[in-house]
Amino acid sequence: MTQKITTGWFISLFTIVGACLGLIWTVFIGDGEPLIASLGLSGIAFSASYCLIVWLGDSFKRVGLKGKDISKADRRELPETMGAVCAVVYLMCMIVFLPFAFYEYFVILTSGGGNRDATSEVETGRLLHRFPHNKLGEYLSAILSLQSMVILGVADDLFDIRWRHKIFLPVIAAIPMLMVYYVDFGVTNIVVPTGLREYLGTALLDLSWGYYLYMAAIAIFCPNSINILAGINGIEVSQSIVIGSFIAINDLLYISVGGHPATDSHLFSLYFLLPFLGVSLALWWHNWYPSKVFVGDTYCYFAGMTFAVVGILGHFSKTLLLLFIPQIINFIYSAPQLFRLVPCPRHRLPRFNARSGLMEPSRAPFTRPPRWYIALILDMLEKLRLVQVWRNKEGVILEFSNLTLINLWIVTFGPMREDKATMGLMGLQIACSIIGLLVRHKAALLVFPHDNLSI
Amino acid sequence: MTQKITTGWFISLFTIVGACLGLIWTVFIGDGEPLIASLGLSGIAFSASYCLIVWLGDSFKRVGLKGKDISKADRRELPETMGAVCAVVYLMCMIVFLPFAFYEYFVILTSGGGNRDATSEVETGRLLHRFPHNKLGEYLSAILSLQSMVILGVADDLFDIRWRHKIFLPVIAAIPMLMVYYVDFGVTNIVVPTGLREYLGTALLDLSWGYYLYMAAIAIFCPNSINILAGINGIEVSQSIVIGSFIAINDLLYISVGGHPATDSHLFSLYFLLPFLGVSLALWWHNWYPSKVFVGDTYCYFAGMTFAVVGILGHFSKTLLLLFIPQIINFIYSAPQLFRLVPCPRHRLPRFNARSGLMEPSRAPFTRPPRWYIALILDMLEKLRLVQVWRNKEGVILEFSNLTLINLWIVTFGPMREDKATMGLMGLQIACSIIGLLVRHKAALLVFPHDNLSI
Repeated sequence: MTQKITTGWFISLFTIVGACLGLIWTVFIGDGEPLIASLGLSGIAFSASYCLIVWLGDSFKRVGLKGKDISKADRRELPETMGAVCAVVYLMCMIVFLPFAFYEYFVILTSGGGNRDATSEVETGRLLHRFPHNKLGEYLSAILSLQSMVILGVADDLFDIRWRHKIFLPVIAAIPMLMVYYVDFGVTNIVVPTGLREYLGTALLDLSWGYYLYMAAIAIFCPNSINILAGINGIEVSQSIVIGSFIAINDLLYISVGGHPATDSHLFSLYFLLPFLGVSLALWWHNWYPSKVFVGDTYCYFAGMTFAVVGILGHFSKTLLLLFIPQIINFIYSAPQLFRLVPCPRHRLPRFNARSGLMEPSRAPFTRPPRWYIALILDMLEKLRLVQVWRNKEGVILEFSNLTLINLWIVTFGPMREDKATMGLMGLQIACSIIGLLVRHKAALLVFPHDNLSI
Repeated sequence: MTQKITTGWFISLFTIVGACLGLIWTVFIGDGEPLIASLGLSGIAFSASYCLIVWLGDSFKRVGLKGKDISKADRRELPETMGAVCAVVYLMCMIVFLPFAFYEYFVILTSGGGNRDATSEVETGRLLHRFPHNKLGEYLSAILSLQSMVILGVADDLFDIRWRHKIFLPVIAAIPMLMVYYVDFGVTNIVVPTGLREYLGTALLDLSWGYYLYMAAIAIFCPNSINILAGINGIEVSQSIVIGSFIAINDLLYISVGGHPATDSHLFSLYFLLPFLGVSLALWWHNWYPSKVFVGDTYCYFAGMTFAVVGILGHFSKTLLLLFIPQIINFIYSAPQLFRLVPCPRHRLPRFNARSGLMEPSRAPFTRPPRWYIALILDMLEKLRLVQVWRNKEGVILEFSNLTLINLWIVTFGPMREDKATMGLMGLQIACSIIGLLVRHKAALLVFPHDNLSI
């Protein structure tokens, strides 16, 4: 079943590319606003990803990057790892955007003389003083971290690296970014909440090396947490689009405050998020229920790392975590299985009931009766309606619903079609994100002396 | 046929890793000489690559990255794209090396107070002034270009991108490097040879944009020229090791001159070449006749781009080209086939004669009789013994030996075993490299006023 691009889509995509090229053209003739160029490139990245995903589907299947959609009656085979296509388009887009991001510094350089020859003698000296090498370093290290993550993600999709190894892959990818953080900022202080100040005796606590561990933990958490809230059509991309959009909204909040000292950090964040949203939307189109392609671990790693990069280099890692509430809940809820306190099957996605066409909670079986305290905890969780449990006639627990947020959603609201589950969870993600941003900008004043949005 | 690592090799590799860890340890307790750390990491990279190539062989074959060795009697199937393993080990090594390369700047920072808290107030300011952000940018952009090249190389190996598209892949990968060249140096002048000065009326010629085209051309030439001097066991890695070693020798020449202004550039080059030689030697071991693995286009791109990166950012691109003489000859000799002036079969590697066990020149057939001027040129080349031609009874040319340096070698010296051909061509490569370096440091004085090795 080869996919095709319809004539209508072709016309739409051509229109988008045309409009985007127009946008980029205004950058060349105008004052070179990088954000406009970023917007234009994001549109082109969307169109390119849309087409490439369609065109490359068969090639991916041919080289074995394919998987069965087990939650459909026909269990058809779909191309896998399509996130790699998006990621490569994204990275190329970021590389092409490089000169735009630093356009203004080139303009300063050549606007004086117009003729390059005339300025060539002072050029080197001037350039070295004016050019923001630290920003360039930040930008390059961010792309480098993302690219490393993509390489490791593709390796994972190709070779199925073991869980206990692959959760640490992001740390390697994060080294360039952490290194640049060290030399550019080196700030390892955190602001102590007002309530704790009298106990700690300081308003700023220096975490020293602990801060780097904290950042490495964020780099591990973001990609992996997206990777474990997965398994039904469209959920990986949808949650990434929601999180990315809310980070972008937060960025725009800061940029809209004229002359805010954090404007640069948030512009930097937008430069990385706009093309990300572009390629993700294209992927979403093909990955939404019923999926025509799968995204692969590559996409989850790539998306998570993008958020980690902008959060860390943009200095809003705490805000970032406020947008990961469903992922944090899913991680905590999954922990007993992840750490093997209870049995954990290889795949925990909900079970497809072919007769009803609905998704039901999938079950993890006990190979031998659970210990008394585990049975007790499962009993309690069952009473709280946080898990479903199946017993034999003697009342011994045989199976329990897998501990994932997706299963919990289905346990709570009953069997439902796959896309309804994704939509419900996305509603939850959006609601949590709105609450997260409100907490950040309103409730934060309760524990911190000021919200840094107001200068 | 699964490969295994012998006990002897295990012991050797453990010894190498132990010694290298010792070397790196001396860096921590001593004054932090990055070159020592680079040497240590290169040894570890060698050992890691050696093992990973053995361990991952079967996984690569399982996902379809495999190819038949058609120049052997048993045409056995070997893992392909093993260059990707080396490249990933190399890139990780370069990322881990990052802090070592800039170690001295960290030492300045913390040696004053010892206690980080004591220096934390002045830290940001101090750091921003002292830290060589331009060098960090150079380093990061170089890794980024290499990594982009590796991603595109793997995509090529997986999906067999068409020739006319793939020769331009290195340009995309080169953008970060060219961009950093622009902001860091921006020097687009070339020194005019003394003989031409009176005609051009200047000693320094500003090529302006032309210089960027020149650098892009080098970035295209190096990877592709290695990729077309390929096809017999071990030749891709062997030529890369020879070229890499001679660049390193040239670097050492500069570094040995105490206080030479170009010391930093050549140290930079060594940092990139030592781990490259490490991973390449490991690959060579498995790829030498009779090959147990194939290197894939990925390796050729990766190797070529490494040379392009160090040549461009180290400002010795002309010297670099002097080490590519066999590749340049091969390219010129191949040009009639590459540009389709004469027929060009998909694969041009020499033909294996199963009876004699020797390699013979492979032939390109004319589907219709060649035009008179092409026949005339082939006649002339035949008289000069630069091509072998096969005719029908009427004397019309039916076939000619494929225009590659490898075929030419076999045409000249007669059928020979595969490894003899590789060894012969490597002898040629070494001889040309020695002549190249002599030209650079001795003969250059005939056309340029001074050799910049003497300060």
